[in-house]
Amino acid sequence: MHTILGNAKKNKQADRVKDMLLQESLSTEVLTERIAKGQVVIPYNNKKILKKPCAIGMGLSTKINANIGTSEDASNVNEELQKMKIAEKYGADAVMDLSTGGNLDKIRHEIIQKSGIPVGTVPIYQIAMDTINAGKDISEITIKNILDTIEKHAKDGIDFVTIHAGIKKEFIDGSIPNKRLLGIVSRGGAILLEWMKKNNKQNPFYEHFSEILDILNQYDVTISLGDALRPGCLKDATDNLQINELFALEELAKIANEHNVQVIIEGPGHVPINQIETNILLQKTICNNRPFYVLGPIVTDIAVGYDHIAGAIGGAIAAWHGADFLCYVTPAEHLRLPNKDDVKDGVIASKIAAHAADIAKNNDIQRDIQMSVCRRMRKWTKQAELSLDPEKFALYRKSAMPKTEDVCSMCGNLCSIKKSDEWLV
Amino acid sequence: MHTILGNAKKNKQADRVKDMLLQESLSTEVLTERIAKGQVVIPYNNKKILKKPCAIGMGLSTKINANIGTSEDASNVNEELQKMKIAEKYGADAVMDLSTGGNLDKIRHEIIQKSGIPVGTVPIYQIAMDTINAGKDISEITIKNILDTIEKHAKDGIDFVTIHAGIKKEFIDGSIPNKRLLGIVSRGGAILLEWMKKNNKQNPFYEHFSEILDILNQYDVTISLGDALRPGCLKDATDNLQINELFALEELAKIANEHNVQVIIEGPGHVPINQIETNILLQKTICNNRPFYVLGPIVTDIAVGYDHIAGAIGGAIAAWHGADFLCYVTPAEHLRLPNKDDVKDGVIASKIAAHAADIAKNNDIQRDIQMSVCRRMRKWTKQAELSLDPEKFALYRKSAMPKTEDVCSMCGNLCSIKKSDEWLV
Repeated sequence: MHTILGNAKKNKQADRVKDMLLQESLSTEVLTERIAKGQVVIPYNNKKILKKPCAIGMGLSTKINANIGTSEDASNVNEELQKMKIAEKYGADAVMDLSTGGNLDKIRHEIIQKSGIPVGTVPIYQIAMDTINAGKDISEITIKNILDTIEKHAKDGIDFVTIHAGIKKEFIDGSIPNKRLLGIVSRGGAILLEWMKKNNKQNPFYEHFSEILDILNQYDVTISLGDALRPGCLKDATDNLQINELFALEELAKIANEHNVQVIIEGPGHVPINQIETNILLQKTICNNRPFYVLGPIVTDIAVGYDHIAGAIGGAIAAWHGADFLCYVTPAEHLRLPNKDDVKDGVIASKIAAHAADIAKNNDIQRDIQMSVCRRMRKWTKQAELSLDPEKFALYRKSAMPKTEDVCSMCGNLCSIKKSDEWLV
Repeated sequence: MHTILGNAKKNKQADRVKDMLLQESLSTEVLTERIAKGQVVIPYNNKKILKKPCAIGMGLSTKINANIGTSEDASNVNEELQKMKIAEKYGADAVMDLSTGGNLDKIRHEIIQKSGIPVGTVPIYQIAMDTINAGKDISEITIKNILDTIEKHAKDGIDFVTIHAGIKKEFIDGSIPNKRLLGIVSRGGAILLEWMKKNNKQNPFYEHFSEILDILNQYDVTISLGDALRPGCLKDATDNLQINELFALEELAKIANEHNVQVIIEGPGHVPINQIETNILLQKTICNNRPFYVLGPIVTDIAVGYDHIAGAIGGAIAAWHGADFLCYVTPAEHLRLPNKDDVKDGVIASKIAAHAADIAKNNDIQRDIQMSVCRRMRKWTKQAELSLDPEKFALYRKSAMPKTEDVCSMCGNLCSIKKSDEWLV
């Protein structure tokens, strides 16, 4: 197929590349070259038109993803569609449907139909749930189940899929995994762990990787190589399991690129702040500057209920050092499936992290300057418009209107900015 | 007077120093030596006993401060006392009463009486309000007003005071301040700007600095040298006004130490993440490793309504690179006086930042390990106890109980940790 990557290799500038330029500072030529080298991806299924596609990778603004989706314990389609809209409204560049409960085909289909931004999935979730719901054991998952489900998602219009092909049998057989405090915290990874242990066979996603790529190529679906062995707590951060899997992911990425399938590399997870830069440098070096998609990372294990903040700290540092794509973390992480409020809080926290990093990386400071100009002039309505959440701005201000209208109730008439304007002339 | 600093210089280990050791890893000898050198301070008025005093500075865990207090537009004593209790409950190491509305003496007195942690004030606020309320102009503030108010606060039991002595007349006379996008954003700084411009005289806090120190010495009140010229937006960050004031603060700090008054240096404010490390290094170099007290810093200007998150990102990076004392930022910053919920959100965000930094700086990871052990064992009650906000933990979990009790509704029976425990043996 004439995929985005295939075209870029021939120096053909796909129309879809040009769409990206309105929002980014790179020229078409540079963008095309980076796509050809695997340094930039555009997750964009060739069977559909997206309102707001995006490019992810080197030299581009930091993108953010919001995970939505049902679980066995909470499966309402409308609720998920609302989460999707909230994510898009507050600035998510992509959503992933991680549903594992209810009518999975219907939920995915609806999300794809209604989303203006790229949609990703983790097909192993549906593969596992279909197996369990058919009264079978995880170990009975066949390669046919795997390929059929991936093809179904691709046909449906999915733009990127997480595939945990890097967790090889040899990684989980030794004694090393047992030394980890938290073992495997990737849901997909844990399902494959069970499958490999019960069958005593190699990871089927690894074994049949080329067949998977043939399907993805046909629909121009981007592959997001999942880090099944990402550490799940600070104590396990940057360990040999994580790094060995990273080597495996790069091997797979090369094969995917040969199949003209675009590749994103996934990363941790739980990382102390002094190890974040190293993690990014390792990925960028080992994986030849491929787009790096990190989950958070969260920088402490004790911020339960506030993991969006721990994730924003880690995400800002990661993106500043070169991570290209931040998966949000919500306040519900480690506790429950996120609800709509959690989704909103997660997206905004992640957006702050991405923007703070873009200020440092790309000097993307224009909106901040506009805000400061409006602050100086005490133009409150315009300030609200420039903020990430105009409704919250208006609500807070309305809740405590000062006696003097052009200031705020923090300082009242002692407003320093007003005094500055009066006396610094 | 026999102040903490005076005693430390004679290598006398104040009893109050010993109290600190239970919570910190330094020996009494090292702590005493650092106090003598001005690298560590213990804000602790000699007229009272604190339940939870703290030491701030080199080699110690990162401390956090919560600003509370009324304004002209919102002045309820009980509300402020409740904010104080919330701040203490969620881990603030100090509170500052920044009241400018209502009966200032009563509010301050009540807060001092009921606080278990050190309390700070900014006397210029009361000086200005008393002047305005007496029907006078800011320019009529006299040195007697200043010294009387500082003495009143000290007698009352205040542990530290912010004094904006570093904003010298020559800094605000030139053309440089006008080139700033946001001029002066310090409330105290703006009051002094007005006073100096109207009177065409030097900053009275600078002129009469020794007299102020004589009062502070008598009650062993720590001086927090305010950064009246801190930048108020990213565009103004790390400019010559800020750095020139920093030089002035160090001159004043040396004089204060000669008077056996302990010193904290205040810092910004609004700083892009790529300038934070430089800001800390500058302060540590110019100010001889004195305790550095930063406000946030927030890392973007557009996160209004979520500035606690922008502040947590900046605070974590700052503390990691050596900032010793973080002033929290609440979601209400730039919008209104914070209410109780804002105080809670601000303290927790700041606590996450401080803890994330302490993990990186001091390998303070024990609580995180305990949390991870409980996660592995799916001990939910114990996890709640180890979290920063056990009530929110319980509320979230209760709101979405999974069918299987030992997992959560995120993954249900696909719980990766459970599978790890079963198969990684």
